[in-house]
Amino acid sequence: MSNETLGAVIDRLSETIAARKGADPETSYTASLLARGPESCARKFGEETVEAIIAACGGAPDALTAEAGDVLYHLLVLLAAAGVDPEDVGAHLTSREGRSGHAEKAARPKS
Amino acid sequence: MSNETLGAVIDRLSETIAARKGADPETSYTASLLARGPESCARKFGEETVEAIIAACGGAPDALTAEAGDVLYHLLVLLAAAGVDPEDVGAHLTSREGRSGHAEKAARPKS
Amino acid sequence: MSNETLGAVIDRLSETIAARKGADPETSYTASLLARGPESCARKFGEETVEAIIAACGGAPDALTAEAGDVLYHLLVLLAAAGVDPEDVGAHLTSREGRSGHAEKAARPKS
Amino acid sequence: MSNETLGAVIDRLSETIAARKGADPETSYTASLLARGPESCARKFGEETVEAIIAACGGAPDALTAEAGDVLYHLLVLLAAAGVDPEDVGAHLTSREGRSGHAEKAARPKS
Repeated sequence: MSNETLGAVIDRLSETIAARKGADPETSYTASLLARGPESCARKFGEETVEAIIAACGGAPDALTAEAGDVLYHLLVLLAAAGVDPEDVGAHLTSREGRSGHAEKAARPKS
Repeated sequence: MSNETLGAVIDRLSETIAARKGADPETSYTASLLARGPESCARKFGEETVEAIIAACGGAPDALTAEAGDVLYHLLVLLAAAGVDPEDVGAHLTSREGRSGHAEKAARPKS
Repeated sequence: MSNETLGAVIDRLSETIAARKGADPETSYTASLLARGPESCARKFGEETVEAIIAACGGAPDALTAEAGDVLYHLLVLLAAAGVDPEDVGAHLTSREGRSGHAEKAARPKS
Repeated sequence: MSNETLGAVIDRLSETIAARKGADPETSYTASLLARGPESCARKFGEETVEAIIAACGGAPDALTAEAGDVLYHLLVLLAAAGVDPEDVGAHLTSREGRSGHAEKAARPKS
């Protein structure tokens, strides 16, 4: 059984997805998703988030484990399709870490 | 400027979130989210995914960078609230990597 | 071309859906959705809402017209699967109409 | 207690919303939503659909009744913001009614 962290898997998966950009859509599921563009990738991402929400509310940790994985995969595909570098997402997350919790919340724009 | 990978940030953030479980909700935004339970965390996660979808379709990479970060943060909080170990999510992702793309897609249950 | 209002269509569709409850899932798409229960209906509803959001952001009124129809159909199916009477939803909407806009917003719980 | 159908409420609400287009955003919540444009209305709609999904999965019919009402209100606002006539949505729904269930499903494009 793997002792890899989630982050290690995400970094490897990000590289694999990046390598699929421009590949023949017939040879890889990831390449076929990327070939359809950001809007189509956003649709798949959105569908998986619905599944994750339902799994979370159903109180089934195993289902949530699987759906969270699907959400992450399709989020990484969406980033690649939209030309966003995963490291920039990490840098954005880091920039928030510095602020303590409630201060950070207060700094966000209201919806 | 940080040269950290997204995975490195996610691993550190996962540890920070895990350390907030049971902490005083008044002292930390993360602790206050966790204290409200998985359903409430799923709602926040869902709201952020809507923002990410809209950012992706609006063709604004900077907005997507920020929203993707919010999605990841709230997904990690949801996992913690639901008692799911991020490493298990990573193991699930890895178990799929082995299968080549289109075979993997075919193995999924139809919605 | 029909001059029916949206409300007239919704009322007729609600009755049709109610009549499908308990019908043989093999004979009707609506019956097959209802037979799978509220959680499955919520998933379909969620998928259609993602499509509607993407259509709205894509600035394609025709696509939004179609997706909004799908959202409404799957919302009515979800209500039927969960045992919620559409008239009660209407009564809830009416109870809000009485309050003027900004007062009504202020009365809502904050997320 | 009202004996109105959901459709009757929706038709009246659609007219009210249409009358708010171009009104001073300070005087009406609906006018303030419309003034922010389709993308912002899509975000509010998306947030409400997340709430409805969670209510449906939580098995709380009363919560689903309220959230379904919110979904409908924000869908009608989104249609108005995007310039889509609710009657056209009804006509789209009607065009599907004619087809029997499973035939209709088979006619849809695959995601």
